[in-house]
Amino acid sequence: MYTVEAIGQVRHDIPEEEVPRRRREMVSEIVILDRYAAALEGIEEWSHLFVLFWMHKVERGAGPLQVHPRHRAELPRVGVWATRGRERPNPIGLAVAELLDRRDNVLRVCRLDAYDGTPVLDLKPYDPYDVFPELRVPQWWREMTGQK
Amino acid sequence: MYTVEAIGQVRHDIPEEEVPRRRREMVSEIVILDRYAAALEGIEEWSHLFVLFWMHKVERGAGPLQVHPRHRAELPRVGVWATRGRERPNPIGLAVAELLDRRDNVLRVCRLDAYDGTPVLDLKPYDPYDVFPELRVPQWWREMTGQK
Repeated sequence: MYTVEAIGQVRHDIPEEEVPRRRREMVSEIVILDRYAAALEGIEEWSHLFVLFWMHKVERGAGPLQVHPRHRAELPRVGVWATRGRERPNPIGLAVAELLDRRDNVLRVCRLDAYDGTPVLDLKPYDPYDVFPELRVPQWWREMTGQK
Repeated sequence: MYTVEAIGQVRHDIPEEEVPRRRREMVSEIVILDRYAAALEGIEEWSHLFVLFWMHKVERGAGPLQVHPRHRAELPRVGVWATRGRERPNPIGLAVAELLDRRDNVLRVCRLDAYDGTPVLDLKPYDPYDVFPELRVPQWWREMTGQK
């Protein structure tokens, strides 16, 4: 067992039930604790960040190991690690967010799909080595998203 | 404070001092705990995974909040969240790994830059929405990597 702590939290006024639908365009703030503000130095030079956060609304240990993606029964039941859903043994969320600006210890970001009040655990710059345009994805994912 | 637990661990025979140099081509295994094997169902249909791991060789709480990237004194001192280095308040590592194959509870992956024995915390599929080819990066990053 290892322990992690919040380095700050997510702030926005979007109701929880609207977050899934608006996840690709929503703008929120990440408010970093004052004692960690120095760790942000220079972060504004990056356009995109990985944001790791704690999915604090997920009940620990109660989840199944397999799910229908997005709870859509017509999609095949797959392991939780084959999906991006919230059910997983360690409820750590990951988003690639666009960094719009920074004011002192407050980052304004786009497309961070986390609820207001979500504890943030880590920030990492997304760099050109993270770009993998040639991907293989499951058929169910293409059906779910309408992507070819 | 939140607690996380290992879902498995990284296995390979590459000496620690060679991992940084070989990080983009090294092949390793992720051995998932038997009790979680069901959560892997269907993961082999994805070509790339985010692997979240615990950087167990990093001493907690002792690190500085700003560093010279890769300890190169000629590069500017920046906040730890502006880098991908190991020093950070929560020592969670993140790699995008190519999934080569799965045999039961063992995944064989390429370019997971973690030491042998590293505890793994989570796996998430990397999908086409994670591809951001248009990026802004700091000048120091271009100098460090030789990327234009």
